[in-house]
Amino acid sequence: MSDTIRIYEVGPRDGLQNEAAHLSADEKLKLIAALARAGLTTIEATSFVHPRAVPQLADADEVMSRALAENGEQVELVGLVLNEKGYDRAVAAGCRRVACGVAVSETFSQRNTRMSTAEAFAACERIAERARADGVWLRAYLMTAWVCPFEGRIVPQKAVAYARRLWDIGVDELSIGDTVGHADPLSVGRLLEQIGRRTDMSRLAVHLHDTQVLGLANATTAISAGVRIFDSSVGGLGGCPFAPGAAGNLATEDLVFLAYKLGLGTGVDFARLWEAVALAEKLVGRPIGGRIRSWWEAHAPDEPQFSIM
Amino acid sequence: MSDTIRIYEVGPRDGLQNEAAHLSADEKLKLIAALARAGLTTIEATSFVHPRAVPQLADADEVMSRALAENGEQVELVGLVLNEKGYDRAVAAGCRRVACGVAVSETFSQRNTRMSTAEAFAACERIAERARADGVWLRAYLMTAWVCPFEGRIVPQKAVAYARRLWDIGVDELSIGDTVGHADPLSVGRLLEQIGRRTDMSRLAVHLHDTQVLGLANATTAISAGVRIFDSSVGGLGGCPFAPGAAGNLATEDLVFLAYKLGLGTGVDFARLWEAVALAEKLVGRPIGGRIRSWWEAHAPDEPQFSIM
Repeated sequence: MSDTIRIYEVGPRDGLQNEAAHLSADEKLKLIAALARAGLTTIEATSFVHPRAVPQLADADEVMSRALAENGEQVELVGLVLNEKGYDRAVAAGCRRVACGVAVSETFSQRNTRMSTAEAFAACERIAERARADGVWLRAYLMTAWVCPFEGRIVPQKAVAYARRLWDIGVDELSIGDTVGHADPLSVGRLLEQIGRRTDMSRLAVHLHDTQVLGLANATTAISAGVRIFDSSVGGLGGCPFAPGAAGNLATEDLVFLAYKLGLGTGVDFARLWEAVALAEKLVGRPIGGRIRSWWEAHAPDEPQFSIM
Repeated sequence: MSDTIRIYEVGPRDGLQNEAAHLSADEKLKLIAALARAGLTTIEATSFVHPRAVPQLADADEVMSRALAENGEQVELVGLVLNEKGYDRAVAAGCRRVACGVAVSETFSQRNTRMSTAEAFAACERIAERARADGVWLRAYLMTAWVCPFEGRIVPQKAVAYARRLWDIGVDELSIGDTVGHADPLSVGRLLEQIGRRTDMSRLAVHLHDTQVLGLANATTAISAGVRIFDSSVGGLGGCPFAPGAAGNLATEDLVFLAYKLGLGTGVDFARLWEAVALAEKLVGRPIGGRIRSWWEAHAPDEPQFSIM
């Protein structure tokens, strides 16, 4: 198994879509540039969702096209698209990497996207066809894979079956989501191991939220299961406006620190990542930062080995 | 493997020995009683160390004898003893359960107890002989099993050898300590699995600190390795006055919550545990509480299944 972890940074999308503060396109581009400087090579920059659903990301077209112009050489920029209309907008903005999604929970699917899971699968199929024809890279999210805020615990067999069905559509990467952050670490490891055996572990990602402070424990069992692609958000920004009780994503700095402790490389420059955290904090106007932040600020200056990780 | 976890509560000893506030014996007894009411059935009540070394616990004799009189029927009360003099004091106070210890790191041993590891082993052997003759239950701590604040990373083979040597002295329980809280979760699981194979997993404990926010991740891999006895401290009190950078122990409430999420029983009444946290906070006069506290306070009232766990 790989001794490096690839971080899929979701702060500008999953992070900002749930922040009360509405950032300008200029501010979002500054954040994306700071993340790129820190060594984050894959960034989900925005969502081509209807502006009424997520007004924070109404400037998706401008953000994507400008981000591509400014960072496209060094960073893989991804746009979230929930339907063909979103796909059309993404491609029109120059985007060559998109992400679509299906929820295991029918109730969550209706509340999150106003589609049934059957309709969401159909939308993903159409997007996959278009992406294949256009040579566009495609990621799929499987949302509420462990727990749904409305339906409760998800039967693992159902999550495995949905993951396999999504995989068979023909995606380049599949991200299994603890959308609300209520999964427990043993279930996280077990489910990912099962899904990895039925797909391709090297193209499997996990999307964790840190609602119940189990983000790092869940990341640990995911690593043990063989997963090497992790979604996270700078400063632990984010959550989900449609999922009551969901706190921010697993913080990128916590994930980088965990990887460091386990001897797994990430390519991230920790000093520059903290600059991105500070910038994000200034932009959203509230205290943010992963759980390692207070220890880091108190102790890291004495430990020179942390300066670049 | 057992589907329950036994919690060895160390708040009154490992917690209070590192708090700036010096509690009175009456206050300590109130805390012990609150912990007993919460369903914690094993409590390390104090340390029979020289009062000059740990002035916070100078009243060990009084606390132990009164705690035994007040809670001895329902709770197993343990006293830490580092040498025969401490053992004598413990037994004179009526204590029938003692804990001794050895560090893997020579430097830590000198700084923590002013003994070499060879002297510490000899002291444990003498205590074990006395305990066997007296019918006193004996636990041993293996300190700095993963990382020493002075020597850095500990070679796993050395930790395994020291654990086996301590086990062979004839102890009833062996607790493997991440004394400074710098261990990583994969190393925690691996080492405990190795030590468990060479001793008896059902009598193996792990003693975690949450310094680098990996307490719950480390507890998770310890559970996967088969460990079912966990040291923790109410409110995450504690640390180690001789270990620079060591924050508090893994919080009892975080551990109980993790066990609940994993479907493992603890016998702890969560509502009453929060009463003990509130009392401990009042007594030490600074904000404490495990990492789950803020989520708990915001969400638990809506989730009736959490009222008793």
